[in-house]
Amino acid sequence: MTILETQGLAAKHAARVLAVAGTARKNDALEAIARAIEQRQAEILGANAADLEAARAAGLRPALLDRLTLDARRIAGIVEGVRQVAALPDPIGEVTKMTTRPNGLIIGKRRVPLGVIGIIYEARPNVTVDAAVLCLKSGNAVILRGGKEAFRSNQALVAIMRDALEQAGLPQNCVSLVEDTSRESANELMGLTEYLDVLIPRGGAGLIRSVVEHAKVPVIQTGVGVCHVYVHEKADLDMAARILHNAKTSRPSVCNAAECVLVDRAVAGDFLPMAWELLRTKDVQLRGCPETRAILGDWVRPAEEADWDTEFGDYILAVKVVGGFDEAVDFIAAHGTGHSEAIVTGDYFAAQRFLDEVDAAAVYVNASTRFTDGFEFGLGAEIGISTQKMHARGPMGLEELTSSKFVIYGNGQIR
Amino acid sequence: MTILETQGLAAKHAARVLAVAGTARKNDALEAIARAIEQRQAEILGANAADLEAARAAGLRPALLDRLTLDARRIAGIVEGVRQVAALPDPIGEVTKMTTRPNGLIIGKRRVPLGVIGIIYEARPNVTVDAAVLCLKSGNAVILRGGKEAFRSNQALVAIMRDALEQAGLPQNCVSLVEDTSRESANELMGLTEYLDVLIPRGGAGLIRSVVEHAKVPVIQTGVGVCHVYVHEKADLDMAARILHNAKTSRPSVCNAAECVLVDRAVAGDFLPMAWELLRTKDVQLRGCPETRAILGDWVRPAEEADWDTEFGDYILAVKVVGGFDEAVDFIAAHGTGHSEAIVTGDYFAAQRFLDEVDAAAVYVNASTRFTDGFEFGLGAEIGISTQKMHARGPMGLEELTSSKFVIYGNGQIR
Repeated sequence: MTILETQGLAAKHAARVLAVAGTARKNDALEAIARAIEQRQAEILGANAADLEAARAAGLRPALLDRLTLDARRIAGIVEGVRQVAALPDPIGEVTKMTTRPNGLIIGKRRVPLGVIGIIYEARPNVTVDAAVLCLKSGNAVILRGGKEAFRSNQALVAIMRDALEQAGLPQNCVSLVEDTSRESANELMGLTEYLDVLIPRGGAGLIRSVVEHAKVPVIQTGVGVCHVYVHEKADLDMAARILHNAKTSRPSVCNAAECVLVDRAVAGDFLPMAWELLRTKDVQLRGCPETRAILGDWVRPAEEADWDTEFGDYILAVKVVGGFDEAVDFIAAHGTGHSEAIVTGDYFAAQRFLDEVDAAAVYVNASTRFTDGFEFGLGAEIGISTQKMHARGPMGLEELTSSKFVIYGNGQIR
Repeated sequence: MTILETQGLAAKHAARVLAVAGTARKNDALEAIARAIEQRQAEILGANAADLEAARAAGLRPALLDRLTLDARRIAGIVEGVRQVAALPDPIGEVTKMTTRPNGLIIGKRRVPLGVIGIIYEARPNVTVDAAVLCLKSGNAVILRGGKEAFRSNQALVAIMRDALEQAGLPQNCVSLVEDTSRESANELMGLTEYLDVLIPRGGAGLIRSVVEHAKVPVIQTGVGVCHVYVHEKADLDMAARILHNAKTSRPSVCNAAECVLVDRAVAGDFLPMAWELLRTKDVQLRGCPETRAILGDWVRPAEEADWDTEFGDYILAVKVVGGFDEAVDFIAAHGTGHSEAIVTGDYFAAQRFLDEVDAAAVYVNASTRFTDGFEFGLGAEIGISTQKMHARGPMGLEELTSSKFVIYGNGQIR
């Protein structure tokens, strides 16, 4: 057996214990983790300092250095996150349906853990704790494979969580870290069909593509969002400008930020200058279609074909004037990534048709796409946002980390 | 674009129309399909005769020839199946949850189709219609890739279904057949991430392994079952013998048939001879552990290590005497495939622990494993039995062919 197979087998054994551990013991373990992270903060900061030093020497970009950095405030945030997850209802054990069949069999569908979850992620060490506690609360063992930049920080955090698990009477192997951060270890993890029930990549488009391309284990695809705001001719233009401004600029690096605005021709001449008044306060770069440039001026950079399919993740917005509802919906079908799509309209029928016809994880009427988020949707937590249609779609909370089994009570039935 | 990519794109376009077609139109299309199959029976039988002739010439085994054969009775069965699916409730459009958030956003989770489903299957032409109508009813376009032995039959059936779809005002491309039955076409289908939302293999272990190994699109794994009946020391031995006999012999070729019986040592001496009295009526071959042979005699063939992990699919039963509950549950964890597992016992606590601790799609107390089936579970239909934990687990009906989207009603909310 390879090192990773041994780790997979250990996780599978731990998962069997965790699956029937009960809510009280799982919460005890989470509280033990929270306390241990507080108490052993110096250890974490020391490891993180070593990571940062190595990353600076390797010339990591400032934005990535910032994501890698831990300090007392961020650690307090991590600890608070652990306690919030502990306070959430336990999804495991719920019987979502139960019926008695004509032959007297009583058949129930019970919520159970998925088993062993693999998480592949990039630089941020807070994901290490975040993902681990969501998996634990939902009864799953987890194998974490973080980026090499955060390796020492992740090692410290995982060692602390494993100690805390043991104190709480649960197997240490409920949480483990892949000790090899090479590309080979990631590839091996993607092929661990014997031991992994699900693999969740958390990170940029390149990571997710690579996982979808290579994984043999079931994957939940997260993340990429080319989201649109469609300003319908019957929109309240003031509301539309505020929604667009929020969707584009409140946090442009995240997947639920808008990348493109579609405007009905009938209102484009009024709307685009209004919208620009707000967008210019954040120095948003526009990339427009010819009609947009005719309205706003030649200073608007011409949109190239690739711009309609790009997740800019930055203060850049593609702008297109459309002939009406059908063209807008077709454009979204052609260029959207099925993440979050919004219409702004005062027309009842346009609103209903948009909700029906646009195929995305979250479809909005008169609200910013930025709400697509586990906390905002009331799930209490979030492991990621699924952009696939199988298993889970949209923000994933604890329930999305579960499976089900049929439990059948008989009294001798044969078929 | 390759032929298959063109087909995928056409299916994707058709799926957009089908997704919002409504229940009445979908049911009209199903009824048109049922009628057309009845009316064009001669065409189907002609194509099937050509398939059979070619298969006989190629020396296909009698059992496979039988699965390939269509006749008036089987066609009537197919037609009845179509009408049964038409009569089922439409899962699409159900809103499973809807809440108003503190900021006034109204967020609902609405059931929607998966989109485009690929089905890869082997010789039986009835699967062609069966799978297609389940996909249609649940609002999904389907790309069918059947085995080469049934190609002419499948062509005839798909042509008939496409004509009927058109008559009912739906796009023909809601159903299409992969015209190339080579291994290459299967591999290409498995990589069609741009157009396929889900791929479901229906067939033997080899097919399923190959799909899991090669697919880049999300897969729902179906089928393989190494199922156990565990006879606990507190079992009603008479009931246990009847359940075992039924689980093994009522239809040994299917995945929910039992392959192995585990018997508590305390009752093995009484139980095994009783069970044999029933099993011998079907000439079941036993493969036993040493204790089994000590009880029943040397005529029992010694079980080899591989026998504990084999889906015999035949009148063969592995028999093992165990020391008690824990050994039985550990044995099932080590050798089961997570399909269907049964305990026979009169002990309340043993029953509850078995339901909790055994990790399988269906876990039974005092009933035959043979009930794991969409019809028996009251789902009304079945596209297959999932043995994975993601998306769906156990028998899959129409609901399991759906995804969800969040629909959000706002009045100007920004974040």
